[in-house]
Amino acid sequence: MTPVAETVSIGTELLLGQIVDTNASEAGRVLAECGIAHTHRQTVGDNFPRLVQALKLALSRAEIVLTVGGLGPTEDDLTREGIAEALGDSLVHDPAIEAHLRSVFEARRLPWLDSQLRQAQRPSCARPLINRNGTAPGLVCQKDGKTVIALPGPRGEFVPLLEGPVREVFLQLGGGQVIRSRVLRVIGIGESVVEDRLKDLMAGSDPTLAPYAKTGEVHLRLTKLANDRGSADQALDPLEAEIRRRLGDAVYGVDDETLESAVVSLLKRREATVSTAESCTGGWIGARLTSVPGSSDCFVGGVVTYSNRLKQQLVGVKPETLEAHGAVSAEVAEEMALGARERLGSDFSVSVTGVAGPGGGSEDKPVGLVYIGVASPKSIEAHRHLFTGLRETVRLRSTQMALFHLRNRVLDL
Amino acid sequence: MTPVAETVSIGTELLLGQIVDTNASEAGRVLAECGIAHTHRQTVGDNFPRLVQALKLALSRAEIVLTVGGLGPTEDDLTREGIAEALGDSLVHDPAIEAHLRSVFEARRLPWLDSQLRQAQRPSCARPLINRNGTAPGLVCQKDGKTVIALPGPRGEFVPLLEGPVREVFLQLGGGQVIRSRVLRVIGIGESVVEDRLKDLMAGSDPTLAPYAKTGEVHLRLTKLANDRGSADQALDPLEAEIRRRLGDAVYGVDDETLESAVVSLLKRREATVSTAESCTGGWIGARLTSVPGSSDCFVGGVVTYSNRLKQQLVGVKPETLEAHGAVSAEVAEEMALGARERLGSDFSVSVTGVAGPGGGSEDKPVGLVYIGVASPKSIEAHRHLFTGLRETVRLRSTQMALFHLRNRVLDL
Repeated sequence: MTPVAETVSIGTELLLGQIVDTNASEAGRVLAECGIAHTHRQTVGDNFPRLVQALKLALSRAEIVLTVGGLGPTEDDLTREGIAEALGDSLVHDPAIEAHLRSVFEARRLPWLDSQLRQAQRPSCARPLINRNGTAPGLVCQKDGKTVIALPGPRGEFVPLLEGPVREVFLQLGGGQVIRSRVLRVIGIGESVVEDRLKDLMAGSDPTLAPYAKTGEVHLRLTKLANDRGSADQALDPLEAEIRRRLGDAVYGVDDETLESAVVSLLKRREATVSTAESCTGGWIGARLTSVPGSSDCFVGGVVTYSNRLKQQLVGVKPETLEAHGAVSAEVAEEMALGARERLGSDFSVSVTGVAGPGGGSEDKPVGLVYIGVASPKSIEAHRHLFTGLRETVRLRSTQMALFHLRNRVLDL
Repeated sequence: MTPVAETVSIGTELLLGQIVDTNASEAGRVLAECGIAHTHRQTVGDNFPRLVQALKLALSRAEIVLTVGGLGPTEDDLTREGIAEALGDSLVHDPAIEAHLRSVFEARRLPWLDSQLRQAQRPSCARPLINRNGTAPGLVCQKDGKTVIALPGPRGEFVPLLEGPVREVFLQLGGGQVIRSRVLRVIGIGESVVEDRLKDLMAGSDPTLAPYAKTGEVHLRLTKLANDRGSADQALDPLEAEIRRRLGDAVYGVDDETLESAVVSLLKRREATVSTAESCTGGWIGARLTSVPGSSDCFVGGVVTYSNRLKQQLVGVKPETLEAHGAVSAEVAEEMALGARERLGSDFSVSVTGVAGPGGGSEDKPVGLVYIGVASPKSIEAHRHLFTGLRETVRLRSTQMALFHLRNRVLDL
C-alpha cells in the first residue's frame, strides 16, 4: 500500500503572492522519489484556527503531513502550536534545542533575546532535526500512526533538511515503488531542434521523456517508475545513451550539474586555468564559476572593466581599437580576452562586452548586442549575439553563452 | 464586508514538483490589490473525485473560487466537469467557443482534431473569456451567489487573462475596497531586534505590520484596507514615518528597491564612485551593482583576486601581510580595498576575503569566516563576520554585508 502524504504551507505572504512556494515543489519531487503518493497541497496564512483546520483535514486523509514555514520566533509563527493542537498533544520546552539556539547566537555574535525561546518549544511527541543553516529545528512528530514533519520556510534551511533527514524518514515510510527521474542538460541547441531530433523517443511512455526550455538551455527529463531505485536507474541508462548519441557534446550535465560546474570539472580534468574580463556582466561570470566548490583549482581571478579607462588599464585594450570600433565590438572582446589571459596568467580567458540596456542602445549597437571573446592557448575568437529581454535576461544569457563558448574551446584542448 | 476568495490549482505535475505554482502567487497578488481576502489555496492532481471535493470545500468557505489549470483538450483535463459537478450545473456545447478554436487552428496551420471539442464545452452558467494566447477560454461561472473563475494553466495564457478581464471581475466583486501594502527593507539589524523595537506597532491591527526574515535583511510589510488607494496610502504614511524614526538608516529601501539599487542611488546622489576587490564572492558584488540600470555612473569596475598572486599583482597586497596574517584576515581585506581604491581610481572601494566552504576551513579560520574592507576618502576599515550556511548562503551574505558596510560609509560622506 503506497502511503499518502499532504503538504501544508503556512504564511500570509504566500497567499498575498509576495513569495512563490518553491519549497512545496521540492517536497513534491522528493515525495515522488520516495514512492509516496502526494495527493493534496494546502496553503493557509498565519491564522491559528485556519491552520489547525487545515492540519486536521490533512490528517484525516493522509498518513504523512509535511508543514512548511511558521517556525520562526515571532508571535506570527504558529506551526508548533498548530501541530500540537491538531494531534491532541502539548508543547514542551526542549533544553537541547535551546542549547543549539544559544550556540548559533554566540557564533554569530548576536545578542540573545528571550523571545527566541519560542523556537525551543516542540510537541511532546516530536523529535527535533538540527538545522545547521538557521535557528528553528525541523520536527518529526509521530502519534497515533500519523507522522507530521515541520520544516522551516527559508530555502537555505528547508532544502538541506528535506534532502537530508526528511528524505530518510520518507524512504522508511514509503517502502514500495519508487519514481526515478534524471535530467539531461543541453546547451547550444534550441528546444525545437532538440525536439525534432528526439521526436520518436518523446513519443514513448515508459520511460517518459519531456523537454523543458530554460533561459539559455534546454532540460530533458527522463522518468521511470519501478520497484526499486536500481531497476529504475537501469531502465533510464539506455535512453540516456541514445540521447547522448544524438546530441553529442551539447549534453553538458546531468541533474543538478550546472553549466558552471561542468566547465570547472572540465577545466580541472584538463588541468587548465581560466580568467575573466567582464564588462556588461559586471562580475557575474566570475561569480558563477566561483559558486562551484573547489573552483580555486582552475579559476585564477578576473577583472571587471566597466569603464573604457579600465579596459585599457587592466587588460590593455588599445585606445585606437576603442576609437575605431567602440567598446561593444568583436575587436574589443578579443583584446579583453587576450589581455586577461596574458596579464592574469591563465590558459584560457573569456570576455564579455555588450549593451545590457535599458539605456545605451543605438541603431548600430542596439540593446541586447553582446560580444563574447575567448582566448585559448591555440586561438582567439569573438562571437556576436543579439539577445532579447530585460537587462537581467540579457546579462544572464551573456554569462550562459560565455560559459558555452569557453567550454567549446576547452573541449578542443 | 470583504469578500473571501480561494484558489484551487489543478495538475499532477504540481504535486510531483515538476513545476512551481507561480500562477497561484500572481493570483494572490491581484486578489489583494482588488480588496479580496485570500484565505486558502488548495492543490489537487488530475483526479475527478479529489477535484470536486476541493471545489466543494472552497465553495463552502469562499464566495469566489479561482481554478488554475485542467482546461486542456485531453481526458486528464477535468476542470470543466469538476466545476459543473460542484455547482450542481451541467455542461453545454458553446458554438462561439468552437468557432474561436477552429480559427486558432487555422491561423496556426494545425490540423483540426475533434478531441478539441472538449474545450468548447462550458457549464451552462458560464461566460467565456476569450484567450488570445491559446485555445481554452477562461470561464466565469456565477450561480447561487458564488463565482467560480477557471483559467488555463500555461503562464502566457494565464497572466493576460488574470490581469485583464479577471481583474475587472475581482474589482466588481471586491466592492470598491482595496488592500494596499508597502514593504520597508531593513539591513544591519536582526529580525528579533527589529521586532523588539517595533513590538507595540506590530500589535496594531489597522494598519497591520509584519516582519519577514530574508537572507541578510528583514522586510517589514505594512498593510491597510481602505475604500480607495489614496486613503490606504495615506494611512500607511504615519506608520512608515514612525518605523523610520525608530530604525533610522537601517531602512534602506521601499517595496522592490534592492540593496544594490539603494547603494547605486546613494552613490549617484553623492556624486561618488566605487570599485570592488573580491575574493570568495568571485565578482558577485560587481554583478549586483551592475544589475542596476545606470550603474555605470558610479561603478568604475573591479578585480576578482581569487589567487594570492593576483591579490598582490592587481591590488598590491603585500607578500608580508599575506605571510603574517593569511589571505583571510582584516589586514588583507584593508589592503585589498585600499589598493582597489587607488589603482582603479574610485572614491570608495569595498573588498571581501573569506572561507566560503565547504572545504578550506581550519580551526583558526573556519568555513563562514569573512572579512569585509571598505576604503573611503576619509577612512579604511575591516569587519569580521562569521556566517553559517552553505557555500552560496555564505557568499550571498558576504555580498549583502559588503553592500551594507559600503552604504554606511557613503552615508557618512
